[in-house]
Amino acid sequence: MDFDALFTNHLDTLKAEGNYRVFADLERRCGNFPRADNHKDGQLRDVTVWCSNDYLGMGQHPAVVTAMVDAVRACGTGAGGTRNIGGTNHHHILLERELADLHGKEAALLFTSGYVSNWAALGTLGARIPGAVILSDEKNHASMIEGIRHSRADKVLWRHNDWRDLDRKLHAVGDRPKIVAFESVYSMDGDVAPIREIVEVCEAHGALSYIDEVHAVGMYGPRGGGVTEREGLAHRIDLIEGTLGKAFGCVGGYITGSAPLVDFVRSFASGFIFTTALPPAVAAAATASIRHLKESSAEREEQQQRVARLRARLDAAGIPHLANGSHIIPVMIGDPVKCKMISDILMNEWGIYVQPINYPTVPKGTERLRITPGPLHSDADIDHLVTALSSLWRQCALAHAVA
Amino acid sequence: MDFDALFTNHLDTLKAEGNYRVFADLERRCGNFPRADNHKDGQLRDVTVWCSNDYLGMGQHPAVVTAMVDAVRACGTGAGGTRNIGGTNHHHILLERELADLHGKEAALLFTSGYVSNWAALGTLGARIPGAVILSDEKNHASMIEGIRHSRADKVLWRHNDWRDLDRKLHAVGDRPKIVAFESVYSMDGDVAPIREIVEVCEAHGALSYIDEVHAVGMYGPRGGGVTEREGLAHRIDLIEGTLGKAFGCVGGYITGSAPLVDFVRSFASGFIFTTALPPAVAAAATASIRHLKESSAEREEQQQRVARLRARLDAAGIPHLANGSHIIPVMIGDPVKCKMISDILMNEWGIYVQPINYPTVPKGTERLRITPGPLHSDADIDHLVTALSSLWRQCALAHAVA
Ligand SMILES: Cc1ncc(COP(=O)(O)O)c(C=O)c1O
Ligand SMILES: Cc1ncc(COP(=O)(O)O)c(C=O)c1O
Repeated sequence: MDFDALFTNHLDTLKAEGNYRVFADLERRCGNFPRADNHKDGQLRDVTVWCSNDYLGMGQHPAVVTAMVDAVRACGTGAGGTRNIGGTNHHHILLERELADLHGKEAALLFTSGYVSNWAALGTLGARIPGAVILSDEKNHASMIEGIRHSRADKVLWRHNDWRDLDRKLHAVGDRPKIVAFESVYSMDGDVAPIREIVEVCEAHGALSYIDEVHAVGMYGPRGGGVTEREGLAHRIDLIEGTLGKAFGCVGGYITGSAPLVDFVRSFASGFIFTTALPPAVAAAATASIRHLKESSAEREEQQQRVARLRARLDAAGIPHLANGSHIIPVMIGDPVKCKMISDILMNEWGIYVQPINYPTVPKGTERLRITPGPLHSDADIDHLVTALSSLWRQCALAHAVA
Repeated sequence: MDFDALFTNHLDTLKAEGNYRVFADLERRCGNFPRADNHKDGQLRDVTVWCSNDYLGMGQHPAVVTAMVDAVRACGTGAGGTRNIGGTNHHHILLERELADLHGKEAALLFTSGYVSNWAALGTLGARIPGAVILSDEKNHASMIEGIRHSRADKVLWRHNDWRDLDRKLHAVGDRPKIVAFESVYSMDGDVAPIREIVEVCEAHGALSYIDEVHAVGMYGPRGGGVTEREGLAHRIDLIEGTLGKAFGCVGGYITGSAPLVDFVRSFASGFIFTTALPPAVAAAATASIRHLKESSAEREEQQQRVARLRARLDAAGIPHLANGSHIIPVMIGDPVKCKMISDILMNEWGIYVQPINYPTVPKGTERLRITPGPLHSDADIDHLVTALSSLWRQCALAHAVA
């Protein structure tokens, strides 16, 4: 068996389809974000990052940087163990309290990532609640899909954001324990779920509601508690999941919910139990970031203003982008090769970094640029981006119709 | 459906069995490790940690701390994206080069944890190699078990460390692609695999060999390349997996292997693709730690000397512990309630922290204290521990026979 030949074959197929991924090698510069250095062919190039999920620039906020540096100096670089065996640090406890408070829940549990929190929580609930059925929005994130798959619970897909379809399907499931899993802001299209309607349907059927607020925590709601906070619905959702790696500018994931629910996942989830805890310094930085965004709405407001400005400028220039209720601006291309080409030209000729988004992150044929304006993009940055895109659109004769 | 009642029921069962977990709330003190503060009932208590997986104390090494602090100041607190979308930082690239070099392989790939690296790599190989069969040592870690389960590939268990049984089972599988997964140092018993024999069996059957060196990297071999380095076998193993969260004192996991193998996992593994990258500062700290341990054997030698001293003292005191070829000293108790009681007395009366290890981390009936001496435990620390254990053994009339 020639394994390497098999791997190379698979990779050649990816390359032929235009789906082979080349990572941009960046060096973020703390204090200068969204500017970064791009390492390429032994050279360094100054670029402006337009596709970061450090949505609010909190990864360079002085309070967050200082919290992390201080905690490294005080506690060292790692936790030194799993949460159960020597790895629980007081910074983890403080962060979990902060997260429970953020969402108005009794308890919270920290994971090494948002991916692991979804995978482990859904995997555990689905496997350990006898007879459970998981009803999953058809556009749910990979981490939820894999968690559900892992649980081996019965799974029912419902049409994206369609609470009437969910209602019908809950009805059809009948008298079994039901878990409804969905997101607030969908990462790639940027659309927002009709949370109120979904919650009401869940309540009517006695289903456990599970929401992923990964792309919303820090950014929506008066204290950054996400769309569920903004809509006053957090207390009606059983489990709110989020990340520390996007708007909060660090790394890690979490769930919040009732004390028994959280203790249950803590006690049974393999992906929580059998892994080294996050460094205390990461927990300290995330706590500082959450605290800041609970008090300050300036970053959220500035971001929303930047998003509105870029959308208006794109409209004026006739560059098609998906309309949605969030901060995510998808510019649809619909072809992986063309998408990568545009991204390469933006990087090489304009010093603009927007990663092409291709399969498997989005379905084939819906390749796109996913632009995420933040409070630190200036008017000049926006002008530069729109000028670059307009020039490319002219050169490539791309369709000007709104997708 | 009263979900909370169901969760509470399950938790009550755990409590009744003595398997409910209470995490010790610690505050590590950089520079004073293995000393830490234990937060309990609003009080702070000075304790000596005897169960850390920061095996060599690298989590407080000045070079590692400085590398992390400098990188936080230079790059900020987070990566800001997945590896593909804005999250690859030059520190990740440098770390991956360092890891490939550590194991003498063409390439390396970083994951958010060792758990995720096993889960994602085995999950991807098992699912994507048509007709693959995974032959798994029956004592493999949860992260490998879950990865294999996730792959849905056929799985064959072989008797722990029994290469003859492996040989027979490989033979029985016949002409299909075969992956053999095992560990070098087993975490809970501390025993070491007969790697040479296993490798030879793999070679004879054309199987892909996959080794988890999580409890060995940094600690064995002249450059800390693990048991495979010490035995001169690294080049004969297809995939070496490890962690940055134990001897290297940080957090994160990785695989190393041929360029096509690593590129294959990079391109197809959901658990690698769909998650925020580790903070650049974590990568910088890990790189500094690996570099230091490539050059310096002082920590390894000192650790081995501490382990030998503690074993001799336990023998002299008649405290039973498992004999094995590693740095892990399991003191067998065999009952979860007794094990927790001993651990509580050690903590409360002696200021000694050794977490009780219970189900599901070890099989029921094999509950134990797992003691991990490091280069920073003094002779006085060892005396204090042995005095405490001797006193407990007398009080509790525990068997003095070697388990
Ligand atoms: C909707 C959604 N959920 C979960 C995750 C995973 O979070 P993390 O990056 O913290 O692993 C992501 C993206 O990374 C996501 O887009
Ligand atoms: C054998 C083994 N493999 C993998 C892991 C997971 O590594 P990490 O802690 O980096 O997730 C562990 C323990 O945590 C382990 O004991």
